[in-house]
Amino acid sequence: MGRQKLFLEKMAQIFQVRNKLMRQALAECLGTLILVMFGCGAVAQLILSGGSHGMFLTVNFAFGFAATLGILICGQVSGGHINPTVTFSLCLLGREPWRKFPVYFLGQTLGAFLGSGIIFSMYFDAIWDYGQGSLFVVGDNATAGIFATYPSKHLTLLNGFFDQMIGTASLIVCILAIIDPYNNPVPRGLEAFTVGFVVLVIGLSMGFNSGYAVNPARDLGPRLFTAIAGWGSEVFTANSFWSLVPIFAPFIGAGIGVMVYQLMVGYHVEGEERDKREAVEREDTERIKLSAVSEKENA
Amino acid sequence: MGRQKLFLEKMAQIFQVRNKLMRQALAECLGTLILVMFGCGAVAQLILSGGSHGMFLTVNFAFGFAATLGILICGQVSGGHINPTVTFSLCLLGREPWRKFPVYFLGQTLGAFLGSGIIFSMYFDAIWDYGQGSLFVVGDNATAGIFATYPSKHLTLLNGFFDQMIGTASLIVCILAIIDPYNNPVPRGLEAFTVGFVVLVIGLSMGFNSGYAVNPARDLGPRLFTAIAGWGSEVFTANSFWSLVPIFAPFIGAGIGVMVYQLMVGYHVEGEERDKREAVEREDTERIKLSAVSEKENA
Amino acid sequence: MGRQKLFLEKMAQIFQVRNKLMRQALAECLGTLILVMFGCGAVAQLILSGGSHGMFLTVNFAFGFAATLGILICGQVSGGHINPTVTFSLCLLGREPWRKFPVYFLGQTLGAFLGSGIIFSMYFDAIWDYGQGSLFVVGDNATAGIFATYPSKHLTLLNGFFDQMIGTASLIVCILAIIDPYNNPVPRGLEAFTVGFVVLVIGLSMGFNSGYAVNPARDLGPRLFTAIAGWGSEVFTANSFWSLVPIFAPFIGAGIGVMVYQLMVGYHVEGEERDKREAVEREDTERIKLSAVSEKENA
Amino acid sequence: MGRQKLFLEKMAQIFQVRNKLMRQALAECLGTLILVMFGCGAVAQLILSGGSHGMFLTVNFAFGFAATLGILICGQVSGGHINPTVTFSLCLLGREPWRKFPVYFLGQTLGAFLGSGIIFSMYFDAIWDYGQGSLFVVGDNATAGIFATYPSKHLTLLNGFFDQMIGTASLIVCILAIIDPYNNPVPRGLEAFTVGFVVLVIGLSMGFNSGYAVNPARDLGPRLFTAIAGWGSEVFTANSFWSLVPIFAPFIGAGIGVMVYQLMVGYHVEGEERDKREAVEREDTERIKLSAVSEKENA
Repeated sequence: MGRQKLFLEKMAQIFQVRNKLMRQALAECLGTLILVMFGCGAVAQLILSGGSHGMFLTVNFAFGFAATLGILICGQVSGGHINPTVTFSLCLLGREPWRKFPVYFLGQTLGAFLGSGIIFSMYFDAIWDYGQGSLFVVGDNATAGIFATYPSKHLTLLNGFFDQMIGTASLIVCILAIIDPYNNPVPRGLEAFTVGFVVLVIGLSMGFNSGYAVNPARDLGPRLFTAIAGWGSEVFTANSFWSLVPIFAPFIGAGIGVMVYQLMVGYHVEGEERDKREAVEREDTERIKLSAVSEKENA
Repeated sequence: MGRQKLFLEKMAQIFQVRNKLMRQALAECLGTLILVMFGCGAVAQLILSGGSHGMFLTVNFAFGFAATLGILICGQVSGGHINPTVTFSLCLLGREPWRKFPVYFLGQTLGAFLGSGIIFSMYFDAIWDYGQGSLFVVGDNATAGIFATYPSKHLTLLNGFFDQMIGTASLIVCILAIIDPYNNPVPRGLEAFTVGFVVLVIGLSMGFNSGYAVNPARDLGPRLFTAIAGWGSEVFTANSFWSLVPIFAPFIGAGIGVMVYQLMVGYHVEGEERDKREAVEREDTERIKLSAVSEKENA
Repeated sequence: MGRQKLFLEKMAQIFQVRNKLMRQALAECLGTLILVMFGCGAVAQLILSGGSHGMFLTVNFAFGFAATLGILICGQVSGGHINPTVTFSLCLLGREPWRKFPVYFLGQTLGAFLGSGIIFSMYFDAIWDYGQGSLFVVGDNATAGIFATYPSKHLTLLNGFFDQMIGTASLIVCILAIIDPYNNPVPRGLEAFTVGFVVLVIGLSMGFNSGYAVNPARDLGPRLFTAIAGWGSEVFTANSFWSLVPIFAPFIGAGIGVMVYQLMVGYHVEGEERDKREAVEREDTERIKLSAVSEKENA
Repeated sequence: MGRQKLFLEKMAQIFQVRNKLMRQALAECLGTLILVMFGCGAVAQLILSGGSHGMFLTVNFAFGFAATLGILICGQVSGGHINPTVTFSLCLLGREPWRKFPVYFLGQTLGAFLGSGIIFSMYFDAIWDYGQGSLFVVGDNATAGIFATYPSKHLTLLNGFFDQMIGTASLIVCILAIIDPYNNPVPRGLEAFTVGFVVLVIGLSMGFNSGYAVNPARDLGPRLFTAIAGWGSEVFTANSFWSLVPIFAPFIGAGIGVMVYQLMVGYHVEGEERDKREAVEREDTERIKLSAVSEKENA
């Protein structure tokens, strides 16, 4: 095994990336790739099989567990955001520096792009078979919905904006609770699984309006891919420029989520901790003074 | 990042609530909001999509995992009851003071009210679309069942009362086992997940009669909301005042659940512990006496 | 709270059962009650709702998670068998004394009897509604299948016997692996969850022939209940005395399961441990001899 | 119990296998048997019941949790590969010696063979009933698909090859992340559960083309069994020798998976560790030199 080991070590040294932010962006890219590959793969399986090999529940499970796996894969390196609104929320709270935000966003969007590309090539035959030789963005044989999200018929743009805001706010409230260092309700190592449950539940209850993107990278990456791969620019203009909603609404939702969690739980658990710490410090000061006094008296 | 940090710290100090019971009520409010938002959201998705984006199983999953998330979010602050019958059972057992009960009940009902409000605005277009411009409490296009529970056709009021009692008793038996300090069968930190499984299983097996409210706050809050939001007072009077059943029956069920668990498991594990402790104490007394005797003899 | 506490402590002392085996039988009774109540409840929900509130998958989930909850509730007291074939296997392996077997069997069957009684009263209206005023054992409106198992049309008695043997053998192989002290693959406290997964998987893959009883108590208790509650003795005689199969076949299956696990994994992990222990002991003896020799030489 | 104990100990010594590789092959055999028995059992239940007792989702759950159970059963003895491509990947990375590969492959294929045999005998009546007295490889009443995988109508051989490559690469990327000693994102003891989730997600999103074998042993063993049991050599030649795809494509996919994970995450976490270690060593050397210098100066 000696020669194999030498070769492996050489490879390891050649390909090791030493820039930390670069490494984190790469990890975010792989994590989001996993999320989108499994998630959009489940949508593809549902649509292309005409319901025989999937249903909306399987899409929910796939996105939920794919989020878990994506976070597990990159968590140790980059924190496992795989969603720009998570990066955004942590920057808002001052837990991550703002310069991480554009780099992570880029890495995540690239990962989502690649992930949808893999699903496209995996279901290449089935996609052409389903569209009978064409790639439709809207209509009965539409296949663009496998990759990016499109609104249901009943949905107005305003309600859709609200839908993405609420969905993302719910996601952020739950994630903040799960990773809050003063609240820490989940045993170490189970955060990724719990976030997976959050994504699953959002899909179960908030997926009907427009397919719960709640993640600008998960929506933009695959939309870019479909634009290039043959569906054309209609993927951006369809449904009166719906494509802009899942990019901008989630960030506003993230801001609201941060506020709600902090006001209703976060500030209080954090504050309690601070109060305790200060009380201890005050006591210490008190004691020092007292001992100084008693020393004087002794003297 | 300096200025942001200063701003954040100022916010934290302004909005910190220092009254403990108030803080707990707020946390219960957010926890129950999460439970009802995700749970009723899944019912909305099932009904409004006409079954294409959900089924009864997805509602069960949603309520189960929503219970888990709700408990996780507020558990460290308030104990994570998110159900007045849980608070009631713990008061019955003397583990929580009775004065917590009304405050928690209020917080929980408010949370459920707000949670259903969020779902109403999220699915605003879809609800009006489904009712074709009206909000019906009963009938084919009824949408009130998204928020509060209504009995199936086959159900008499008496059987319905019994249904809610049994459901809540089962819930309480399982929860008491999970959090029993002398039984502690679940690794620390997994209680919320296990309670989520309990809620899931109750939905899988006890949901057909009337939709397994087993939680007065979860039913009353959304019912109040629908009364105000446009469905009118019929939500209280429909099905010969069904609305009273999910408020009162669960508390009786909770009492029965406490009795069953204590008689069949609780008293024995607790008693065994006490017997051991007393045996150790008796031995100690014995030894002291003996040593006293031997000291005398030595003397 | 003083008076409440006194009252509670008095209750605790009055109702504490001090006989250990009695206590364990009570706990097994409650555990199996939970298993059958939730499990058969899910079957009831599936059949009585005509498929609108359940499907075979929900029954599988319910039995799986109900097994988890049943084990959690009684595990600390009785070991959490809730299945006579588990007790039987542990007796076969010499890990439990044989005198426990009849007592546990009785407690488990009683629990299953009570659990099905609770479901009967919970779905009382729905059961009479479904049978249009009658309780049928076989036919389109049959409701006896809610409680005990009955074979599919294609199944011969011989294949049915084999079916129950294989199912129980699979269950026992998995349970033995999970609780093997020399193999211990599952973190402490997660055994109940893993056994729940086993029951779930058996339902997903071995449920079509006759509904995977794989547990004599789970089948006999509810069958007795239906015989008394109004379905009559036909529940025992139907399908050429099928009722005997889920009582006897599982025990043979358990024996096979014990053999398979021990031969393919158990004996080897256990033996390795023993070999190591003996090696250490031999070394110690060696060393003692050597040191004796060297002492002699020194002398 | 004395005599029973003696008998049991005798048995243990007679049947203990002392050759480690042999023991590991036996364990892999049992693990893969469990995987295939539960997995193919779920396919059998789905097909033979005509959809009343299963759907594609139940097959996904069964294969996922069956993988978990299979790994749990043999994990302590053999590492719990139950898939030759996992063994292959670990050999590629130099973490397992190459001589293990053929032995494991054989044990795994034998286990898959036996597992499908058990399902065949369990559903013997139902299989003959379904085929109305015949065993078909293709067509409406085909039952060969219960055991081995066959491609969908839309699939070309090239796309099928790609499908198996991508599926296996995804599996290997996730498994490498889960067991990476430098990344270790999952709490100890939960690896098997997480791998089960991976298998579940692959089924949810990559199962439509050809049934996600992604495991040469899981496909070859049952195919061999069907060839012998009565379906004949057509199981190998059908669909222009499809049978070769799930044997060869997964190994190429495994190689790709190893490369992707190492390039995007593995090399960097490993390298960081190495850099730290070297930095510490360098510092130590530095310090030794310095202290030598200072000793000199002192001298």
